[in-house]
Amino acid sequence: MEYIKNFNVRNERNLTMLVDFYELTMGNGYFANNLEDKIAYFDMFFRQVPDEGGYCIMAGIQQLIEYLTNLSFTEDDIKYLEEKNIFSKEFLDYLKNFKFTCDVWAIPEGNPVFPNEPLVTVRGPIIQAQFLETMILLSINHQTLIATKANRICRAADGRPVMEFGSRRAQGYDGAIYGARAAIIGGCNSTACTIAEQMFGVPSAGTMAHSWVQLFSTEYEAFKSWAEVYPDNCVLLIDTYNVLKSGLPNAIKVFDEVLKPKGYRPKGIRIDSGDITYLSKKCREMLDEAGYSDVKIIVSNSLDEYIIRSVLRQGAPIDGFGVGERLITARSEPVFGGVYKLVAVEGNDEIIPKIKISENEEKITNPGFKKIYRIFDKETDNAIADLITLDGEKIDVTKPLVLFDPVFTWKKKKIRKYYIKDLMVKIFDKGKLVYECPEVCEINKLAEKETSRLWHEVLRFENPHNYYVDLSSKLWSLKQNLINKYSNIYNDN
Amino acid sequence: MEYIKNFNVRNERNLTMLVDFYELTMGNGYFANNLEDKIAYFDMFFRQVPDEGGYCIMAGIQQLIEYLTNLSFTEDDIKYLEEKNIFSKEFLDYLKNFKFTCDVWAIPEGNPVFPNEPLVTVRGPIIQAQFLETMILLSINHQTLIATKANRICRAADGRPVMEFGSRRAQGYDGAIYGARAAIIGGCNSTACTIAEQMFGVPSAGTMAHSWVQLFSTEYEAFKSWAEVYPDNCVLLIDTYNVLKSGLPNAIKVFDEVLKPKGYRPKGIRIDSGDITYLSKKCREMLDEAGYSDVKIIVSNSLDEYIIRSVLRQGAPIDGFGVGERLITARSEPVFGGVYKLVAVEGNDEIIPKIKISENEEKITNPGFKKIYRIFDKETDNAIADLITLDGEKIDVTKPLVLFDPVFTWKKKKIRKYYIKDLMVKIFDKGKLVYECPEVCEINKLAEKETSRLWHEVLRFENPHNYYVDLSSKLWSLKQNLINKYSNIYNDN
Repeated sequence: MEYIKNFNVRNERNLTMLVDFYELTMGNGYFANNLEDKIAYFDMFFRQVPDEGGYCIMAGIQQLIEYLTNLSFTEDDIKYLEEKNIFSKEFLDYLKNFKFTCDVWAIPEGNPVFPNEPLVTVRGPIIQAQFLETMILLSINHQTLIATKANRICRAADGRPVMEFGSRRAQGYDGAIYGARAAIIGGCNSTACTIAEQMFGVPSAGTMAHSWVQLFSTEYEAFKSWAEVYPDNCVLLIDTYNVLKSGLPNAIKVFDEVLKPKGYRPKGIRIDSGDITYLSKKCREMLDEAGYSDVKIIVSNSLDEYIIRSVLRQGAPIDGFGVGERLITARSEPVFGGVYKLVAVEGNDEIIPKIKISENEEKITNPGFKKIYRIFDKETDNAIADLITLDGEKIDVTKPLVLFDPVFTWKKKKIRKYYIKDLMVKIFDKGKLVYECPEVCEINKLAEKETSRLWHEVLRFENPHNYYVDLSSKLWSLKQNLINKYSNIYNDN
Repeated sequence: MEYIKNFNVRNERNLTMLVDFYELTMGNGYFANNLEDKIAYFDMFFRQVPDEGGYCIMAGIQQLIEYLTNLSFTEDDIKYLEEKNIFSKEFLDYLKNFKFTCDVWAIPEGNPVFPNEPLVTVRGPIIQAQFLETMILLSINHQTLIATKANRICRAADGRPVMEFGSRRAQGYDGAIYGARAAIIGGCNSTACTIAEQMFGVPSAGTMAHSWVQLFSTEYEAFKSWAEVYPDNCVLLIDTYNVLKSGLPNAIKVFDEVLKPKGYRPKGIRIDSGDITYLSKKCREMLDEAGYSDVKIIVSNSLDEYIIRSVLRQGAPIDGFGVGERLITARSEPVFGGVYKLVAVEGNDEIIPKIKISENEEKITNPGFKKIYRIFDKETDNAIADLITLDGEKIDVTKPLVLFDPVFTWKKKKIRKYYIKDLMVKIFDKGKLVYECPEVCEINKLAEKETSRLWHEVLRFENPHNYYVDLSSKLWSLKQNLINKYSNIYNDN
């Protein structure tokens, strides 16, 4: 679809200046200290799965790529920075001639991801690698948050289609657009956000609002007019006045009088308020009695995974869900706390690992330039654990693999029949894009497949099993040594 | 600042297709029923103040204006819609030649606003007025949410500056950019979001990250290098290793050894983790002892209005706050539930009011084309109440004004010394922009001024007084008549 690509170009923005101001003051500082070309490694990772869940769904790489591809400072940007009167001429000249030269690795979108493993790693001159912090975090935090929430909601819907309906309550235009994209990645089957179909080729859908019904003198007339325009795809919104006394009876009348004579089957009814469990049961009975057992019941109105699970457990005969504000804002936990930390620098032809110490053990970073391997069970193809190693470490898959808990190291697990997958792929090589993003609908399928390879204990909503994210012995020892070194220097004086 | 205006143009987007798909199916439906030119009135309003607060701060009008000004369908849009195979040629031709001709009224940004009063009213051909729903809601919902949250946080900070630090955790790029704008409207004094300064002329600010400190072999060396680059604006981040044993002693050493000899005073220190109450008290003592009683203590780390109030009550000597994720996502209540409802249509030279009935009394809409007057006390200049009237009603300010509760109508209040202000201004006249948006910093001042005119009982966080939003007798009677009419038709069959 060529026009979709054109469309993207039309809306392409240069977001170079969407950056925390301190990245600029630091950039200027590197220059002043002749450190701008120092090669540094940064990891983007998160510490906690939202909603106390067992895993997240990776998303946001395509937008990160678009940002990195467009990275350049305009004359206006330079002029604006000059007027701040704090940046050196050398630094501003560097920005003027900015050329992106970093290596970037990332876990592809749609994969389940877990706390404390790098989702994105950047290697390059520190002035560049540092500068990317805001946009890497913003891109991945937002879409991973929404994809993860959508995945929870779709799991609760248990195979029934979930439509993303939240544009009007999103946090800003991109919240709606990229939120719709992430919702599809997480498992939604369509979105009400029209522009998202144009931009990403994801299916958009929608029927009528209450205002359509209000516009006509009677509800019957409103339904009749609608059925005449859309006889082959007729879904009626039946809660403008009274679902059981007016909405559904009028809908059935229109099905009988307008669609039946023309040989059309109605598609569905939608309920957007009230007690949806009670109403859907009553509507199902009335529809069946009237000979419309194939007509679907769609519900919407402040739904999330908990309400969907609850109404289904109560036996509500609902065929599809429209989910709005609680999905598009991840209302129950609207912050995805990804961070971006310096993990190493290069010097004297070696990689010097760096660590951020904290009194809170969870907040201590994993130092060094690393790789992540996902370990799969050879018999079930299920994911057993992720293993983080230093770059260059080899895993001999012909031998048993011993995993150990990074805190309680006596907790060990020996794995025999397994295979491994290198999780991260290279996205940019010395600044050149070397990765092609799959279509969003492909990512949706990947997410479904890879999620199905997790143990049920990791998938469940309540008290999920903590999926193992372990460190190789070598990485574990390196980390301990650095912790000891820094706590000696900084805590014992 | 000419370059700011250019910058806006560079990043201008056509968001015409950011629309719920059902607006398009309805648009096509109006055409099929020859209703496209029917003149309709829609109100945008909300039903509840987030966080159980007493008022909201209006925001988002400027972006709404940009959207309406750019409203047009490209050839790609038309081609995309054609391929859906459900839209008539007449409808697509209409879109191709689309010309915006609506009247739009709105309450200007920065004003305190209350539940159930129209924030935006649109009058025009229903096919157009309906089409605007998604973007009106999205623009106003998002920015009003963040401006309101920022206002709460700034009130808790009680005059101390609050810096917006949340870009990396925002829900999408616009969440960061327009969120920063709304944060300034709500009361923040600066933002870390650089592009927001370029676009809106709001002050941006920022110093260093932990990575700066990690990059150097020692913390002292890192601070020293920083102080040498920024001697006249030196703020050091002191929690990379250990605030009291390492961070602050190193900072003081650098103040003494680098800044003092050159005659510079340091500006501040920042603490981004740990027990900020305890640490700020200890740091204050140590700074004072070292002769730096003028050096400010800035804190950040998952702050919101509740934590800020708590640490200040405990006597934490904090001079400024950096607030991130909990502000930029309005984490405690991340959804602003604005709605957009049909309230009237024109026919036979009269305005025919429309109502949306609900079993939930709060969800019944106020019908008709309306005006809002804010009633001020002549002696104190405080806002007493908002009165919603039908268009054309006159208030004789020389006579006492009787307000009554719209539910418990026996609750009456007679007001004698008052003056009134027509709250809504006309933004578009038959599609032509007739309003000039103030600068964001001006809106910030307006918000501060207008908020100070609310009673303390409305301002407080806990159990605020419900500000009166009353209906004129004429509007109240009209509403009752419509409720009775529809409940007779739809509930009693």
